[in-house]
Amino acid sequence: MTAFRVEHDAFGPVDIPADRYWGAQTQRALAIFEVGEERFPACLIHAFGLHKMTAAQANVRCGALDAGLGEKIIAAAAEVRSGKFDQHFPLTIWQTGSGTQTNMNANEVIANRANECLGKPLGTKSPVHPNDHVNASQSSNDSFPTVMHMTAALELEDRLIPALVLLRDSLRERADAFADVLKIARTHLMDAVPMTMGMAFEGFTAQLDNALERLHGTMPRLLVLPQGGTAAGTGLNAPPGFATAFCEAASQLSGLAFRPNPCKVEGMAAHDALVELSGVLNVIAVSFTKIANDLRWLGSGPNCGLGELLIPEDGLTSSIMPGKRNPTVAEVVVQAAMQVCGNHMTVTMAGASGSFELNVAKPVLIYNVLQSIRVLADGARMFAQRMVQGLAPNREKLARNLENPLLAVTALNSVLGYDRAAQITNTAVSRGIAPRQAALELGLLSGEEFDRLVDPMRMAKGNP
Amino acid sequence: MTAFRVEHDAFGPVDIPADRYWGAQTQRALAIFEVGEERFPACLIHAFGLHKMTAAQANVRCGALDAGLGEKIIAAAAEVRSGKFDQHFPLTIWQTGSGTQTNMNANEVIANRANECLGKPLGTKSPVHPNDHVNASQSSNDSFPTVMHMTAALELEDRLIPALVLLRDSLRERADAFADVLKIARTHLMDAVPMTMGMAFEGFTAQLDNALERLHGTMPRLLVLPQGGTAAGTGLNAPPGFATAFCEAASQLSGLAFRPNPCKVEGMAAHDALVELSGVLNVIAVSFTKIANDLRWLGSGPNCGLGELLIPEDGLTSSIMPGKRNPTVAEVVVQAAMQVCGNHMTVTMAGASGSFELNVAKPVLIYNVLQSIRVLADGARMFAQRMVQGLAPNREKLARNLENPLLAVTALNSVLGYDRAAQITNTAVSRGIAPRQAALELGLLSGEEFDRLVDPMRMAKGNP
Amino acid sequence: MTAFRVEHDAFGPVDIPADRYWGAQTQRALAIFEVGEERFPACLIHAFGLHKMTAAQANVRCGALDAGLGEKIIAAAAEVRSGKFDQHFPLTIWQTGSGTQTNMNANEVIANRANECLGKPLGTKSPVHPNDHVNASQSSNDSFPTVMHMTAALELEDRLIPALVLLRDSLRERADAFADVLKIARTHLMDAVPMTMGMAFEGFTAQLDNALERLHGTMPRLLVLPQGGTAAGTGLNAPPGFATAFCEAASQLSGLAFRPNPCKVEGMAAHDALVELSGVLNVIAVSFTKIANDLRWLGSGPNCGLGELLIPEDGLTSSIMPGKRNPTVAEVVVQAAMQVCGNHMTVTMAGASGSFELNVAKPVLIYNVLQSIRVLADGARMFAQRMVQGLAPNREKLARNLENPLLAVTALNSVLGYDRAAQITNTAVSRGIAPRQAALELGLLSGEEFDRLVDPMRMAKGNP
Amino acid sequence: MTAFRVEHDAFGPVDIPADRYWGAQTQRALAIFEVGEERFPACLIHAFGLHKMTAAQANVRCGALDAGLGEKIIAAAAEVRSGKFDQHFPLTIWQTGSGTQTNMNANEVIANRANECLGKPLGTKSPVHPNDHVNASQSSNDSFPTVMHMTAALELEDRLIPALVLLRDSLRERADAFADVLKIARTHLMDAVPMTMGMAFEGFTAQLDNALERLHGTMPRLLVLPQGGTAAGTGLNAPPGFATAFCEAASQLSGLAFRPNPCKVEGMAAHDALVELSGVLNVIAVSFTKIANDLRWLGSGPNCGLGELLIPEDGLTSSIMPGKRNPTVAEVVVQAAMQVCGNHMTVTMAGASGSFELNVAKPVLIYNVLQSIRVLADGARMFAQRMVQGLAPNREKLARNLENPLLAVTALNSVLGYDRAAQITNTAVSRGIAPRQAALELGLLSGEEFDRLVDPMRMAKGNP
Repeated sequence: MTAFRVEHDAFGPVDIPADRYWGAQTQRALAIFEVGEERFPACLIHAFGLHKMTAAQANVRCGALDAGLGEKIIAAAAEVRSGKFDQHFPLTIWQTGSGTQTNMNANEVIANRANECLGKPLGTKSPVHPNDHVNASQSSNDSFPTVMHMTAALELEDRLIPALVLLRDSLRERADAFADVLKIARTHLMDAVPMTMGMAFEGFTAQLDNALERLHGTMPRLLVLPQGGTAAGTGLNAPPGFATAFCEAASQLSGLAFRPNPCKVEGMAAHDALVELSGVLNVIAVSFTKIANDLRWLGSGPNCGLGELLIPEDGLTSSIMPGKRNPTVAEVVVQAAMQVCGNHMTVTMAGASGSFELNVAKPVLIYNVLQSIRVLADGARMFAQRMVQGLAPNREKLARNLENPLLAVTALNSVLGYDRAAQITNTAVSRGIAPRQAALELGLLSGEEFDRLVDPMRMAKGNP
Repeated sequence: MTAFRVEHDAFGPVDIPADRYWGAQTQRALAIFEVGEERFPACLIHAFGLHKMTAAQANVRCGALDAGLGEKIIAAAAEVRSGKFDQHFPLTIWQTGSGTQTNMNANEVIANRANECLGKPLGTKSPVHPNDHVNASQSSNDSFPTVMHMTAALELEDRLIPALVLLRDSLRERADAFADVLKIARTHLMDAVPMTMGMAFEGFTAQLDNALERLHGTMPRLLVLPQGGTAAGTGLNAPPGFATAFCEAASQLSGLAFRPNPCKVEGMAAHDALVELSGVLNVIAVSFTKIANDLRWLGSGPNCGLGELLIPEDGLTSSIMPGKRNPTVAEVVVQAAMQVCGNHMTVTMAGASGSFELNVAKPVLIYNVLQSIRVLADGARMFAQRMVQGLAPNREKLARNLENPLLAVTALNSVLGYDRAAQITNTAVSRGIAPRQAALELGLLSGEEFDRLVDPMRMAKGNP
Repeated sequence: MTAFRVEHDAFGPVDIPADRYWGAQTQRALAIFEVGEERFPACLIHAFGLHKMTAAQANVRCGALDAGLGEKIIAAAAEVRSGKFDQHFPLTIWQTGSGTQTNMNANEVIANRANECLGKPLGTKSPVHPNDHVNASQSSNDSFPTVMHMTAALELEDRLIPALVLLRDSLRERADAFADVLKIARTHLMDAVPMTMGMAFEGFTAQLDNALERLHGTMPRLLVLPQGGTAAGTGLNAPPGFATAFCEAASQLSGLAFRPNPCKVEGMAAHDALVELSGVLNVIAVSFTKIANDLRWLGSGPNCGLGELLIPEDGLTSSIMPGKRNPTVAEVVVQAAMQVCGNHMTVTMAGASGSFELNVAKPVLIYNVLQSIRVLADGARMFAQRMVQGLAPNREKLARNLENPLLAVTALNSVLGYDRAAQITNTAVSRGIAPRQAALELGLLSGEEFDRLVDPMRMAKGNP
Repeated sequence: MTAFRVEHDAFGPVDIPADRYWGAQTQRALAIFEVGEERFPACLIHAFGLHKMTAAQANVRCGALDAGLGEKIIAAAAEVRSGKFDQHFPLTIWQTGSGTQTNMNANEVIANRANECLGKPLGTKSPVHPNDHVNASQSSNDSFPTVMHMTAALELEDRLIPALVLLRDSLRERADAFADVLKIARTHLMDAVPMTMGMAFEGFTAQLDNALERLHGTMPRLLVLPQGGTAAGTGLNAPPGFATAFCEAASQLSGLAFRPNPCKVEGMAAHDALVELSGVLNVIAVSFTKIANDLRWLGSGPNCGLGELLIPEDGLTSSIMPGKRNPTVAEVVVQAAMQVCGNHMTVTMAGASGSFELNVAKPVLIYNVLQSIRVLADGARMFAQRMVQGLAPNREKLARNLENPLLAVTALNSVLGYDRAAQITNTAVSRGIAPRQAALELGLLSGEEFDRLVDPMRMAKGNP
């Protein structure tokens, strides 16, 4: 049997399970929003801990909070940051569009914990009050979007960028290893001219290099925080200098160079910076799709596919076809990419939905951004470690595919001109013979000339 | 310290926590797919229990499974259906695109449980073998999409449709209650002609009626199951009559009228039926957005908004603006709708991604469909109970808005013609006077004539 | 040098090129909306002609329009329907969200033309007035969405459905022709069990059958018209019976069974029926993508791809690789499908954007729906005629791919059990030998037993 | 009666209308791709002229083209750039996914025109050959994506950025003009604290500033050209130094700082840079939606809406409600934004669809990007000129809305604490009295204290 305590808020008394650190507003929200099971990831709750530590530091520095209370708030908030109170954030993302209930949840947990450390029972709201002290100089209107930016930036730094670097480096390493592995190029899925496997992997590597460049490009707008705007961007109830003090403290605590948004209204009423970030995650999803698809096609077979790459085994197989090997890791990557593209649409709609001084689709917006970051990061790491690093060329198949490449005649354009080169192709196709034979039969070239002009490795290098 | 047992599969031995009912393939998958935290909802796991019960019944009936073993499998699968083994399905949705690992997870849990009930320790795979018996006559290729269809259909029946009916009935009840509440209509957000609040709610009700019609319209293709296709749709290793026996058993156990997909390849290689369903969920999300937005706008204020509806209080407020009331429930509904629209894009991309005999984006596809169903259903129920049913007209504001409606002159078209009626509007706007006064000053009508022709309630009924 | 005439509207005089049939409101709109070049397709303009004919008939029948004037309006509107006045609809789709300017454009052209036929110069607005007579009993609020539904329904009937039937029949014909062509199935892009090419085409055919079923399923809501709602759904200024009379006349003139929307507000404030239709077009796009991709992959090569299908030549080639053949038609189909999926997102956002009594994203919504119908219809016809009907099997490649299929061991499950069958696969893979040899070496079966159990054609039929 | 000439290509003779400058491949394509009506905008055709001028210059410089022929090609290409031959590019975008047919169309028109200037009849292909000379050192594989980048970059520079600057400056000018116009802020659509109209417009201005920053941020990857990759990125048939020479000439001719893509395969196989750009256009669409919606809501009324802004009249009105004014321009902006968001999904799917060395969704991808640029640019210009610049405050309504603002009590938090301030609000709401009166009745403050603490203009400035 659960024991309850009673807490009071502006609307009256509320029963709360006695061992829970949340308060009245959280409890009310729990009863109202019975929707779904989607929760903010732990990183957002932890960032709220960091945020409230930061706010208390800035409040003390600006003289808006007693230093003694501030110390207790900071200590309690640090525990939230550490993950110790994850179980005391029971709400799903399906709450009011400002994220107010999760902000209040943080205020309540920290106030209760701080009071507890001061020897008071949970629920007293004194000496530390969730609104007057933990939320001092703040509004959900500015705190929640500040946490959105902080969490997203931290997740990029700590999770996505390192994973992309790993994948990029793994692709580059394979590009180097495959530098001299000749293969047939394919355009429109059709046999084209010779190239190297290394060139294909250089293409993938370049995509990852650009992905990193793009992510870094969003930072100038992501590291900008609306904190200090309080109600509707006015700054009401925040002391002068609060926004700056907050960003300085946040930068020191996090290691990221946060700075105040010069236009608070913009940072609360719109989330263009996160829509922009989601757009970059969407590009990364697009890149991943291209790369993962190419790899599973190149590894298709073993006998009846393209079969030019050998994909590392993972011990997983079919439930009916015994021992069948499948490119499971690539399929996860592609599916994760689809999720990111869909999330991007949600983020786009959420970003477009704001009215006046507040965007009220904040929870769903940040949930989708953080999910996209997470699955791309985890996907990239798994992709690198469980697939890319173990790829090997199927030299036998590669070589067989380079016998008599039909469009090798492209190398003859400069000698014969396009129209006569085309004659060779047409003859080869219609007669079912190799282009070399066709060229000879048409009397356009001698065998020696053909062999000199049509050298796969030289062609792969652009026939220098 | 966790104790481990060793299980073997086609690729060798695997260590498994001793108290877990899953087997080697699940354990391998856990180690490989370290991506995200998204799990299939419990309803899909339970549907897998139902599916394996059904398959065992059909196998026994077709002579492909010993009746004694079948009985044990059915009992174990029933426990999975009941939710008893939810903790033994540890995989996320980020797995191979056929859902094979979750199918194997089900096979392994059921085989272990069945053997346990026969007095054998976990991991023996005998007498009940996960592939040979639990998965008998099946492939992941046909079982997983069958479970996708079954879960989606059950969720519609059990969750979404009842919630939509509740919302529809709540809207209709309000429409009736508001039948004689006059209000100004708004087109382009601008004041138009008089109408009733009831008419607006009849519009919402009609949207819900249509939503239900649309959902029922997808059923003919959703109740069709590819079971019996086994590997690549060939039916290999399934006894004659298996597909029919399966659907009969499934219908009996679930109460839904499942029937075999006449083209197994279609049901495994494509998921058009689920893309279609997602398209209908997308329409419902669109309807919800319209309705929820209208309600929060009509309830905006209290002093500086439209303020024509009074939204029931929920006890939630701002963290900085003390006692502020917000339309929280409507904001959840709108956010849920955005999620559904984004999910629909993921489902669309997943649906378009199939190759040859297998669509390999099944897990991400069904995850998004089920999430959409869940948040729409929960959102509809909360919307009905916590907002719609408690709506009341603000009669004072409604009446004030009907004083001197500018475009009431529309009722004069038939008497004056469009051009002279426009003169009245232009005069009223430019002089800042009421249209009645403008009409009189222009000498177009007497006051009596104006009052007779411009009667709000008669206009709201189309001036019959 | 252009000559001008002067027309007057509610806001004063406007200069109009003397030879143009449009009037003041159209001319004003031209000057204001200088955006893009996107125009409604001719079918929408023609449907407006049909609509105004219908409205005039209904007005005369209901006594709201003088029969003589009605006759002239009907004659002029019939000319608009015939395409004669296409050049007199100069506006792009970038206009007010109710489509008012295009409705006014139609009213003005028809009034001018009717007056001209009565011997009056353009611009007189008498005896036929664009608002009082051509637009009698109508509003843009109800006329434009009525035309949206009428055009969409007509385009489905006249364009999309016949094209889908052609494609479906072409696929079915190929399915029959390929019924006995054995091929390797592929799941996860990897070699699976034997099947027939006919089965793959049956899958495609089933997708098209379902597409047709889905389109027909939208009709009950598409054939429902909001005409009669006039301003904001009130029916103000429309005579009793107008909605019914309109639908009867529209049905007679068009051959489609239109009927009145019982809730006019719903049909003007929301466009769920068109979002629903767009969702079905989205499914068709998904189906097309799957089919076109499969065909170009199966036709990839000629030497280094899958090469199991021979794609008909079209005479198009590369600008640098002389004589190269590419699956151009399939690429168009896939690109058209992408357009449809993107259009669907626009339609979704447009559908969700309505406020109160009017959705004001009508022009962009119907533009995207009609573009989707058009490119799917044209794409389907081209796909059928220029690719599907000409497909031929590459029997040599197909046969080679069926030598020693690795997962043919699936047929041994029932004899050996899954685990021993897996041993065969593993041995074959690790030793690089055929499964038959592996089975023999492992001593699990004799050669005769293997050959009896592993018969591709029998396996393709499910090993009956 | 059309006269025809006969041209030959690799597949034989083709009849071409005698007065058309295109050649055999274009004519074949016309007959095959009977899909839709969507054409590349003129800017892309003109960029093709620029491209072929550039290529000829680079070819001459690298010794790959006779200077005399080069001169003729440059002259002919310059005419294409000037728009003189727009009517000779008859193909729609529905062509092969590499854009080969439009590249060939350009080659053919330029070759024919150059030969004509050399006194040869159309169709001779000599001395200037479309493939050997106009297309020298090029492939469609590298030329088409190069033109995609060039056109997009030019359209940004010439069209979108200037329009955004105009809109930004117009918004900023209004922000300054409205700096001291007090208004009620709204969060969750509900009355919040006082602010100024200027602050709201500063928010819009900041969104535009960021939009420009984002566009500039894409340039490093947009100005990078894959030219020189020729077939499949190998550089086959291009002389050493061609890529550099091309970019130098392109920069000189266009004024943009183009440079070679260091990884040609990346630039041909993927279009991440354009997906990224589309993502930024999507953010701009989101910003436009927010701004345009806010403006039409603030201008709603005139009597029953928010009515705080006066929207300039445009002379357009309703077809049934005579003289009704609607925010038509804002509705166009919002609809254009929806189109851009949908286009972004098409671009995303197109970008994700590449295989191996070539993305084959180039035409649909660039079509959508260019349409998005166009409608955003035109929309921004119209929005600035026809709406933003003419906005005026409705001072009477603004003042009325600031009488007794309910949440002005927020200013009392620091004096009374959050909980007692909430008491005031609750009392005011439940009793229907002004907060000042409630404060007095509750005995929490004197009237003088209240008036000193609750000063709208000081609150709007953050109560400094």
